[in-house]
Amino acid sequence: MDTLLKDPGLAPAGLRKIDFAASRMPVLSAVADELARTRPLAGHRIAACLHVTTETANLCRALVAGGAELALCASNPLSTKDDVAAAIHEETGAAVFAVHGADRDTFYRQVAGVLASRPTLIVDDGADLTATIHSGRRDLLAGIAGGTEVTSTGVLRARNMAREGALAYPLLAVNDAATKHLFDNRYGTGQSTLDGILRATNVLLAGKVLVVVGYGWCGRGVATRARGMGARVVVCEVDPLRALEAVMEGYQVLPVAEAARVGDIFVTVTGNRDALTLPHLLAMPDGAIVANAGHFDLEVDVAGLRRAATGAAEVRPGAVAYTRPGGGRVIVLAEGRLVGQACAEAHPAEVMDLTFATQALAVERLASAAEPLPAGVHPVPAAVEERVARHKLAALGVRCDDLTAEQEGYLRGWRLGT
Amino acid sequence: MDTLLKDPGLAPAGLRKIDFAASRMPVLSAVADELARTRPLAGHRIAACLHVTTETANLCRALVAGGAELALCASNPLSTKDDVAAAIHEETGAAVFAVHGADRDTFYRQVAGVLASRPTLIVDDGADLTATIHSGRRDLLAGIAGGTEVTSTGVLRARNMAREGALAYPLLAVNDAATKHLFDNRYGTGQSTLDGILRATNVLLAGKVLVVVGYGWCGRGVATRARGMGARVVVCEVDPLRALEAVMEGYQVLPVAEAARVGDIFVTVTGNRDALTLPHLLAMPDGAIVANAGHFDLEVDVAGLRRAATGAAEVRPGAVAYTRPGGGRVIVLAEGRLVGQACAEAHPAEVMDLTFATQALAVERLASAAEPLPAGVHPVPAAVEERVARHKLAALGVRCDDLTAEQEGYLRGWRLGT
Amino acid sequence: MDTLLKDPGLAPAGLRKIDFAASRMPVLSAVADELARTRPLAGHRIAACLHVTTETANLCRALVAGGAELALCASNPLSTKDDVAAAIHEETGAAVFAVHGADRDTFYRQVAGVLASRPTLIVDDGADLTATIHSGRRDLLAGIAGGTEVTSTGVLRARNMAREGALAYPLLAVNDAATKHLFDNRYGTGQSTLDGILRATNVLLAGKVLVVVGYGWCGRGVATRARGMGARVVVCEVDPLRALEAVMEGYQVLPVAEAARVGDIFVTVTGNRDALTLPHLLAMPDGAIVANAGHFDLEVDVAGLRRAATGAAEVRPGAVAYTRPGGGRVIVLAEGRLVGQACAEAHPAEVMDLTFATQALAVERLASAAEPLPAGVHPVPAAVEERVARHKLAALGVRCDDLTAEQEGYLRGWRLGT
Amino acid sequence: MDTLLKDPGLAPAGLRKIDFAASRMPVLSAVADELARTRPLAGHRIAACLHVTTETANLCRALVAGGAELALCASNPLSTKDDVAAAIHEETGAAVFAVHGADRDTFYRQVAGVLASRPTLIVDDGADLTATIHSGRRDLLAGIAGGTEVTSTGVLRARNMAREGALAYPLLAVNDAATKHLFDNRYGTGQSTLDGILRATNVLLAGKVLVVVGYGWCGRGVATRARGMGARVVVCEVDPLRALEAVMEGYQVLPVAEAARVGDIFVTVTGNRDALTLPHLLAMPDGAIVANAGHFDLEVDVAGLRRAATGAAEVRPGAVAYTRPGGGRVIVLAEGRLVGQACAEAHPAEVMDLTFATQALAVERLASAAEPLPAGVHPVPAAVEERVARHKLAALGVRCDDLTAEQEGYLRGWRLGT
Repeated sequence: MDTLLKDPGLAPAGLRKIDFAASRMPVLSAVADELARTRPLAGHRIAACLHVTTETANLCRALVAGGAELALCASNPLSTKDDVAAAIHEETGAAVFAVHGADRDTFYRQVAGVLASRPTLIVDDGADLTATIHSGRRDLLAGIAGGTEVTSTGVLRARNMAREGALAYPLLAVNDAATKHLFDNRYGTGQSTLDGILRATNVLLAGKVLVVVGYGWCGRGVATRARGMGARVVVCEVDPLRALEAVMEGYQVLPVAEAARVGDIFVTVTGNRDALTLPHLLAMPDGAIVANAGHFDLEVDVAGLRRAATGAAEVRPGAVAYTRPGGGRVIVLAEGRLVGQACAEAHPAEVMDLTFATQALAVERLASAAEPLPAGVHPVPAAVEERVARHKLAALGVRCDDLTAEQEGYLRGWRLGT
Repeated sequence: MDTLLKDPGLAPAGLRKIDFAASRMPVLSAVADELARTRPLAGHRIAACLHVTTETANLCRALVAGGAELALCASNPLSTKDDVAAAIHEETGAAVFAVHGADRDTFYRQVAGVLASRPTLIVDDGADLTATIHSGRRDLLAGIAGGTEVTSTGVLRARNMAREGALAYPLLAVNDAATKHLFDNRYGTGQSTLDGILRATNVLLAGKVLVVVGYGWCGRGVATRARGMGARVVVCEVDPLRALEAVMEGYQVLPVAEAARVGDIFVTVTGNRDALTLPHLLAMPDGAIVANAGHFDLEVDVAGLRRAATGAAEVRPGAVAYTRPGGGRVIVLAEGRLVGQACAEAHPAEVMDLTFATQALAVERLASAAEPLPAGVHPVPAAVEERVARHKLAALGVRCDDLTAEQEGYLRGWRLGT
Repeated sequence: MDTLLKDPGLAPAGLRKIDFAASRMPVLSAVADELARTRPLAGHRIAACLHVTTETANLCRALVAGGAELALCASNPLSTKDDVAAAIHEETGAAVFAVHGADRDTFYRQVAGVLASRPTLIVDDGADLTATIHSGRRDLLAGIAGGTEVTSTGVLRARNMAREGALAYPLLAVNDAATKHLFDNRYGTGQSTLDGILRATNVLLAGKVLVVVGYGWCGRGVATRARGMGARVVVCEVDPLRALEAVMEGYQVLPVAEAARVGDIFVTVTGNRDALTLPHLLAMPDGAIVANAGHFDLEVDVAGLRRAATGAAEVRPGAVAYTRPGGGRVIVLAEGRLVGQACAEAHPAEVMDLTFATQALAVERLASAAEPLPAGVHPVPAAVEERVARHKLAALGVRCDDLTAEQEGYLRGWRLGT
Repeated sequence: MDTLLKDPGLAPAGLRKIDFAASRMPVLSAVADELARTRPLAGHRIAACLHVTTETANLCRALVAGGAELALCASNPLSTKDDVAAAIHEETGAAVFAVHGADRDTFYRQVAGVLASRPTLIVDDGADLTATIHSGRRDLLAGIAGGTEVTSTGVLRARNMAREGALAYPLLAVNDAATKHLFDNRYGTGQSTLDGILRATNVLLAGKVLVVVGYGWCGRGVATRARGMGARVVVCEVDPLRALEAVMEGYQVLPVAEAARVGDIFVTVTGNRDALTLPHLLAMPDGAIVANAGHFDLEVDVAGLRRAATGAAEVRPGAVAYTRPGGGRVIVLAEGRLVGQACAEAHPAEVMDLTFATQALAVERLASAAEPLPAGVHPVPAAVEERVARHKLAALGVRCDDLTAEQEGYLRGWRLGT
């Protein structure tokens, strides 16, 4: 079995960090223990495309413990931690194709490497595996029992495929599980995005005008944390309901073209293309910092800025200052790729514990031959959400109440009123 | 046409306040203007059961402007503003049955008064009209085109009726519209609940331990505002997902029995019975303040406390201190009824603008004979939500962006990836 | 002994509310108990000029318990609660001169009434007694042992008198005690100002642009609470250090002339005149709400607006809408007087507990003939601050640590370093 | 001239980061430009003991531009950035003694190296130079015109020296300047402390119980930011006034011994020894994280823990997990040294801009022979504070108002009242 790694010798350093993350992931650890007992994935070959982080490594442990043969590739060229990639391979025996800073060709070779395993289950992050299989590797479709998808972007893509009748296997929308998007997207993206900005720039957030473009769950997370660090937050949105919520939360809401002129720091998190175009980038104040927290690197027109710029210099690792023809500089972080994954260490273990425990149980569901799902996008079973949430609360030592029989009865009735 | 009012002479004072509220309700005003032009409610008799406030008065204006004959009764005996009730009657000619502090008998006479109008459309708040009609006035069912319901509690009751096959007409779940629960329940309940507590007690919120029992949309609103006023918030929940969200928001989560021992102020907002039972009330610190923000007055066992108490004294208007057999006092606000409605002036006009504009357009939808809806609970049309939200943003002077054609195309596609 | 009251028959209602407040003022109650034992004020005649509220009533109880003969007048014509005024007189026998809504003449007759008692100690709020005595009743100076002053404004006036050599007796600056301004000015003014605005208007604070003019301790309190209620806060300041702090706290800082054009609600709290002038009032958006939280009613040019306006109508009790010649209305609360005192019930008991316990102990200090203070402005003894703070913590059930001997030693040393 | 550097070849990397920081320090840059013109430090030899960071590098530029000969040593063995140290030496020609991770001996050799320059001015951070000179290098005293001190800890030490009559030269307390402690201690320490914890552990802050031991300016900064990141903050204090403020801000206040049992993350910032003792460290939950943000590494008894532990392992760079005899692990960051300086990059440039502009102007004041200051601790001139604040506001593009002549007159008067 082939692999693509920066340096297998980095495994020990990676392993230490993976273990530390494991100590912060009690739910996933418990799921892994159970999967190790029940081995529901035995006989399955899993192709996974994920950010190669310490948290992902613990998901890999769970999947392999459940009996699966695993091949893993990176879902983003800049989010790969090379020591972690080496450690996953060494510890679990998985085929790992992930090198930090991979160019476009290498990136697609990594995907190809994973698909060479002829997977029966797909674990996806952004739908790149699913899209690639349906476009160019349709020979694999017959063997695939189903897939899971963990991002808003990937679920949207899969739904579009399903609407066109193109999706050929069942896909569980892990992103849509409450145990995923309510936590990972808000608390994970919120923290890791700011963490990425701080590591890349060490700027003071207090007193800055921070513009959040896109007020979905991830954008809310970024806005909340930015405010919590003392920034004045401006929100840009296309959806009037979300814009109105942002207003009511006390944020200033502006069109992007106006926000561009007043912001100090910009974070795109729309899940769409062209969130910040070249005219926006040229209108920003001198020294403005631009980061992307959306899945793909098409939210900010970095290519356009690169072409227009009269100069470019890496002012700190991960931070490139482009000199504009009209004067002043704009500082782009991580080439417009996911800043929390590229400049920091991705979402913290505690929140990925929820996401990946949900993910592992979703994979288990797909592997169950007894009740096969039809092709299409499906929700994660509600029982999975409740189980993950209850386990997490218990692990945190938090107790909550149960409904009494009278209360349950009341909730089912309608006759008792004023 | 009969009415039940405290004093018709209060109308001028009420009218002044209604006009002031109108100046804060641009969306409802625009809807009223349109209804006045199109008269879609002509020929309809509307029975409405609502909190009789300045905001409700403006909804009444819109419905009557639309051509309806209107009969209005109070949805809560303590939320009625007598001057407003008088003004609604005088200005719109509606039959109004609403007296502040009505006892149980009077309350049901008010409902009966409204149903005597033989309504064709129902506008409900808590499903008391709907439940009463289906229980005791089934003769009216044949004439009723449909109803709207504006509360979580009422929608739950209606869904329970529908599940049992008991619901005999179509009911639009206004509460479930994004333009209602995301705003009214959070920002309306949040502010008005604290406002009610402050007017009833004038206590300092900073530094207090405020316990929120129930972390739904309303509970979140109360928790957010209480923290914003400097209180330390403790949350009690039965749903593990909500409990976990509360933890992640930085609240302490405790079972009610433990929270009861450490709280200074308690707010129930569960939409269920028995949120605070007698043992809880007996365990609270001396001087604890108890308020309810849920629809019905069965969340706090005030009756049990009254029986157990060795003394009771109204220490301020709306605030009764019960002396407990084991010592110390517990102070109950508004007899356990909706504190924001009873002790303050209900939700502010700006947020009811959204709710009642949605409500008025939902009534218009029901009145449309062209496309009748089947019996059952239905969502408000999405177009209504978007229209209300866009109008509100415009009225606030807030502009937001539109998707470009490329962006819309991207959101529909799936081939473009990393 | 003369009195000036609206209606002595209101005393029972007032007494009930005073008792409730007392239950929230454990430190002042303990001080009152001690003064009742030690009677240090026996033989003294106290002239007090204070907001006539339930909290002040409890200070009166303490002073009278300490042996003083008391005469009380109102420090603001709109802050007087007539039931409380009646109760103070009835319960303590104090001469009380306080009628809600007193005109200018009556107001000065109230001051004159108090001074007719030929006081030996002065308890002042805004320095009106002190200024009046030094201007027109210099005959009293010989008999006065000293005074206390509880506001920023009053301390500033007293300092100005002292600088000019005009201050003829010792004055303890209660406002400058940490147990006063860090709590009363921030948490008291913050809460009561918003409370006043809500009672007067019932507007939704979420999503509003609220402009705070003046970022001292009171202004910070208002800004913090307004943000906590969901408003977007804009700060106006003349001091660059304070302005910079406001920026770092994430507020937008603008000159008043610019803020006037974008605000929905304005709160002045500068302690200075002309915070909002006529041009500002004419530039505000239609429907803007203007309130003052500074001591005197010269912060907003209400007189100028009244003259310029083409119409005026009381749209709600305490809220007058002025129609501007150029169009649109501005709504002024409480005629530009202290909005929390005039439209709500002044600062909550819990925070006045600190202020008035400090105040009562400051009066005790002045009454001590053993160590007379020279004329001039003096700080409250540090021991008073610490005693009050410790007592309050204990009453709240909050425990904190003590320094160990080693830690105390370390804090005194300098040799131990890296 | 001697130097002690890790690797002079790192200079180019350091220089790039220094330049980026410079772009965020407009006030210090302007001061440097002025000093370059006026050369007030010509003929002076400055000995500086500071955290060797990009911001310090820009202070060094200013001092050298002003004509000084400069020798710099590290104020903390873990805060030194080796590339920056190399760059300072190469660019300014200063003698630099700073190696990351220096042991105790090397640390004191660095101090000795700096003092070998026979300085005439001292720029200190923690008073190590001042204490060393007064203890062991009294021969230098005659030549020293004065010093500046930038930390709370150092100012306390200097005051203790002055009280004992030991301080032999004038020392300007830069820490006490409003432009320093109100910004650097709150916004700088707040952000950099969390940044250090995140880089060292990547833990999720949302939902954690974070215990702040010490509620001075730095502690407030940490508490505010921790809450802003979603943590539930518990405060420990010895001063009752500060404890009461923490309560009113909505924090839970507990004695350290109780907080130790419930915290997930602990930050000491007392400026005192023994903030967390071995019993506390043994009582913490398994996996607790301990960090120090106070100047010296004597706040946490790491040595005691090391002796008591049955095992120790570096689980991530800068994070050592100690296995306790009774079970469970405690994770100590940066060996108990300043976590923001050791695990992240110290305070951001924007806030050090204020601190170091104040510092540079304080040095200029000391160098002025015209008005020499007597030995003792002195405040920074108020004109320096105002100048720095005004310049910063201008650089941020923030405008604020000026007092009118009438307003200035009013603030000086006392006759105008109610």
